[in-house]
Amino acid sequence: MASQPTPQFHGVIPPVVTPRTADGRIDTASLTRLTKHLIEGGVHGLFVLGSSAEVPYLTNDERELVVTTIAGVNAGQVPLIVGACEQTTARVIEEGARMVRLGADALVVTSQFYAISDARETDTHFRSIHAALDVPLFAYDVPVRTHFKLPLDLLLQLGRDGVIAGVKDSSGDDVSFRQLSLGARGIDNFSIFTGHEVVVDGALLGGADGVVPGLGNVDPAGYRRLYDAAKSGDFLQAAAEQDRLADVFNIVYTPTPGRVSGGAGGLGAFKTALMLMGVIDTNVMSAPMVALNEPETAAIATILERNGLI
Amino acid sequence: MASQPTPQFHGVIPPVVTPRTADGRIDTASLTRLTKHLIEGGVHGLFVLGSSAEVPYLTNDERELVVTTIAGVNAGQVPLIVGACEQTTARVIEEGARMVRLGADALVVTSQFYAISDARETDTHFRSIHAALDVPLFAYDVPVRTHFKLPLDLLLQLGRDGVIAGVKDSSGDDVSFRQLSLGARGIDNFSIFTGHEVVVDGALLGGADGVVPGLGNVDPAGYRRLYDAAKSGDFLQAAAEQDRLADVFNIVYTPTPGRVSGGAGGLGAFKTALMLMGVIDTNVMSAPMVALNEPETAAIATILERNGLI
Amino acid sequence: MASQPTPQFHGVIPPVVTPRTADGRIDTASLTRLTKHLIEGGVHGLFVLGSSAEVPYLTNDERELVVTTIAGVNAGQVPLIVGACEQTTARVIEEGARMVRLGADALVVTSQFYAISDARETDTHFRSIHAALDVPLFAYDVPVRTHFKLPLDLLLQLGRDGVIAGVKDSSGDDVSFRQLSLGARGIDNFSIFTGHEVVVDGALLGGADGVVPGLGNVDPAGYRRLYDAAKSGDFLQAAAEQDRLADVFNIVYTPTPGRVSGGAGGLGAFKTALMLMGVIDTNVMSAPMVALNEPETAAIATILERNGLI
Amino acid sequence: MASQPTPQFHGVIPPVVTPRTADGRIDTASLTRLTKHLIEGGVHGLFVLGSSAEVPYLTNDERELVVTTIAGVNAGQVPLIVGACEQTTARVIEEGARMVRLGADALVVTSQFYAISDARETDTHFRSIHAALDVPLFAYDVPVRTHFKLPLDLLLQLGRDGVIAGVKDSSGDDVSFRQLSLGARGIDNFSIFTGHEVVVDGALLGGADGVVPGLGNVDPAGYRRLYDAAKSGDFLQAAAEQDRLADVFNIVYTPTPGRVSGGAGGLGAFKTALMLMGVIDTNVMSAPMVALNEPETAAIATILERNGLI
Repeated sequence: MASQPTPQFHGVIPPVVTPRTADGRIDTASLTRLTKHLIEGGVHGLFVLGSSAEVPYLTNDERELVVTTIAGVNAGQVPLIVGACEQTTARVIEEGARMVRLGADALVVTSQFYAISDARETDTHFRSIHAALDVPLFAYDVPVRTHFKLPLDLLLQLGRDGVIAGVKDSSGDDVSFRQLSLGARGIDNFSIFTGHEVVVDGALLGGADGVVPGLGNVDPAGYRRLYDAAKSGDFLQAAAEQDRLADVFNIVYTPTPGRVSGGAGGLGAFKTALMLMGVIDTNVMSAPMVALNEPETAAIATILERNGLI
Repeated sequence: MASQPTPQFHGVIPPVVTPRTADGRIDTASLTRLTKHLIEGGVHGLFVLGSSAEVPYLTNDERELVVTTIAGVNAGQVPLIVGACEQTTARVIEEGARMVRLGADALVVTSQFYAISDARETDTHFRSIHAALDVPLFAYDVPVRTHFKLPLDLLLQLGRDGVIAGVKDSSGDDVSFRQLSLGARGIDNFSIFTGHEVVVDGALLGGADGVVPGLGNVDPAGYRRLYDAAKSGDFLQAAAEQDRLADVFNIVYTPTPGRVSGGAGGLGAFKTALMLMGVIDTNVMSAPMVALNEPETAAIATILERNGLI
Repeated sequence: MASQPTPQFHGVIPPVVTPRTADGRIDTASLTRLTKHLIEGGVHGLFVLGSSAEVPYLTNDERELVVTTIAGVNAGQVPLIVGACEQTTARVIEEGARMVRLGADALVVTSQFYAISDARETDTHFRSIHAALDVPLFAYDVPVRTHFKLPLDLLLQLGRDGVIAGVKDSSGDDVSFRQLSLGARGIDNFSIFTGHEVVVDGALLGGADGVVPGLGNVDPAGYRRLYDAAKSGDFLQAAAEQDRLADVFNIVYTPTPGRVSGGAGGLGAFKTALMLMGVIDTNVMSAPMVALNEPETAAIATILERNGLI
Repeated sequence: MASQPTPQFHGVIPPVVTPRTADGRIDTASLTRLTKHLIEGGVHGLFVLGSSAEVPYLTNDERELVVTTIAGVNAGQVPLIVGACEQTTARVIEEGARMVRLGADALVVTSQFYAISDARETDTHFRSIHAALDVPLFAYDVPVRTHFKLPLDLLLQLGRDGVIAGVKDSSGDDVSFRQLSLGARGIDNFSIFTGHEVVVDGALLGGADGVVPGLGNVDPAGYRRLYDAAKSGDFLQAAAEQDRLADVFNIVYTPTPGRVSGGAGGLGAFKTALMLMGVIDTNVMSAPMVALNEPETAAIATILERNGLI
């Protein structure tokens, strides 16, 4: 476990989901309530326009509306880390500049996608974005979407060179993540976040600086308790909280494969839970994703009830 | 081999590459010469803003400049089939509408990417785009980029329902392609194109309507001869032409892996060949892709020379 | 199309399926009838213990029984090319030596599997087997099973060095296959076979020497007609025969996914067709694979009837 | 963290590597020393003929020699869990019966490989083996070799039904592993082992019963200390031990990609370390794998020295 100084970006930073109205528009009233729910839950920051926000499905106008709504509610209370979700370097720079103008305190950027790229181009990619935009940059390692695993050596070198301020890891490669956490200890102000909701206790034990949990939309206070227990060295307490959250996480297994896509299932479960909790008004998804139906919603209600969330 | 009527879209429709100046801007003078080179080579249409155009690397302004330049030179001589390269349905519709305004005669659309989608959502995806845009729509099957193979049954159903006007297949699944060609025979005005440069004789023998060959930038007349031989039933002549083109295609194996990415290698070879032939001014690639170097260029010159192209 | 001398191994060489009795034993009577059916259909050779024989499911005793049964019926009429299906080099050599003792005229060998290997080890693998066993060796490229694509350059080098006598390609990479066919022209007595049943006309047009069609169990005479038409230069006739066989191939799409695995579906369809044709007694599969059921069998009967096979 | 009774199989159970002599034979003298080294290091059991033993590369005679050598040295001191590495159900049963005759206390079995299988067949696979062999059965989840991830629901159902006595997880899917650990709590005498050397502290925190660490060949006592610290609830101490072992694990990154395959690199590093420590005589690998060379050996020596292992 790291004993080095806590970096600027750390703790629980949930990726805010994007509520929609029954007719499919961005629901700013629900988004306002959700933002307050998260801040009141004790989160250390907000990850805006992440995969959990359905960012690839949002038009540019919708992306702007989401960022400005959250920034207005937040009013500087916690840092806003904003995704610049575009295909390649030049397009990321344009999107990132727009997000900075809208209030981003930091940017989250993946490797190029749709493009057929490699490690050398990815190195240039991050360095070019850093040179073009004067803002902390997080590398987002999400091979299930980009189909390219960010190499460990590349991430550490970009950290040492001050190109990136940290990594959000959703790679599912826990061996590489541990080596990343170890390597990060020698780099000042370099933050390592896991995106995997059910292994946060182990990640913090291994030296991670925080977590970006989609499930944190549903139970931000639970993740805050987990984080605080770990930071105080009480890992048995952290594990107990993690076990409870791992049970809540079972909501993502309720959607029927075939009827609901892999992308829509987990996010739809988070939205459905938030709807059942009264935080947002609907569980409508961005088209062409379909919302969870009544039986799936009932299954989620059962899980929330046994965990005291409704 | 199909004996049904030739559909509206057919023949040799190369994906036009995007020349850049030495300092990285779109080179409209070179693009003008290239467009003329293709039309004079006897192509039946132009595929604009395809993967070979480096479309994911182009900013929106650059995409507009490319389409308007080609449309201006073409002046209606051949159909312009234009790619609307965006992540999800809503974004494709916005991009597609823009391309239609700029002069597209038809659109080429992939399944969603970066998104984690499935067959059901993909069906909705194409139907929603078709409903929103009054223009022939081609499905582009390119799993090496989208990481989703368009299912055979889905493509044929979308064809029968008039949602798509055809398929551009770059899936590398020749078994599925043959079944697609067979299934397409019962559907009016439904065009099947292969994107694989070196199997065009066999594809036409199996009933394909045409080819979208990246290598067609380099030797459009060769592909026209191949197509004409096949259409006249002289497959031994078609195969001889194909064998020659397969040798020219060896230019894509000249770049050094590790130095040049998979995405940059093939396209870089086409651009380098066009530069050596005097059609375009440079072989500069969109950043962060690197251009082929001198030894790679020399290797390409050797291949072009032995095939009489320079 | 190749005009070079026909190599020793060429033509239609079906991978013989393995009939079982109702209680799951090897059905040597059915296997005897099947072997006669194939030889009478005009095949140029028999591929014994291939994937279509369910070779990974057979115990060593069963493998011996299959080879000796076929060898006894064949009695030297056509060459027997026998699979040596084992995990790594040393085990392949033991298995290959056993097959040679049982009557194999040539061996078919994949790259190592379960092992995590690479190109360099694969080169050593084939050279070691060649050095240990004095028999023609075919490289079997089947990445859907081995999860390793045999590199084009490696195959051609092994051919030039006399290590392998040819390639059986089930890689589904038609671009690489064309380049392989072209490269093979300069190598004496080096045979290129496609394993894909529905693209044989195009493969022969591109210079392939033959085909190893699972569907050839069902209609060996059809593949013989296809091959003869192509060899005589009548590719329109070859394509017509191929189109008919591609329709017969639709039997492999009748099994229900989920109920029947990908491995069991295609092979189960071939066995079910042979049962309906009276060539073998049951469509029982090696456990744990399940046999096709009544509705699936009925669907296959429909396809066979419309193609005049029953 | 689990507070349930410790199951029969638990703790540190390293997969014993297979030493070879300079001329490539099994080195029983070295294997004897290695077995003593592990037992003296305090391991709770030995995993014989695992991937780390190069089991796919061993002939049947070699497999027998390895098992009998280890069983002779062990003389019943710790349980022997033995791999039955074969392609499909019937072949696994034959191999498993042989291993039981040679002294296996439990068997480790993967899903079928080379075969193209599915969840339903895999269920039958494990149930058939359990019915045929009266011995505890562990499911080995190693998709990097089998290319099939064992589904969470299937594993838990097989555990509840008494078909399997536990799981050895080398899937690299830490989310699924946590859910497996949680699900296992309700099942008597069902053991969950991680195969990933650098995340053992987090795995034990999440309720795992033990670890099967390849690196445990090199430092069995270190893994024993890690396990004991975790079991006593001192996770900060466990993490400190894990951090040290994660640094030792860097030996697996010393081999040069291209020269040494992915399969040979990690195992070659373990063998080279054991050679440097004087436990075994050579770092020779099963052909066609190559041994680490002098520079790679020197790099490993540096890592061992800074961790006090030589």
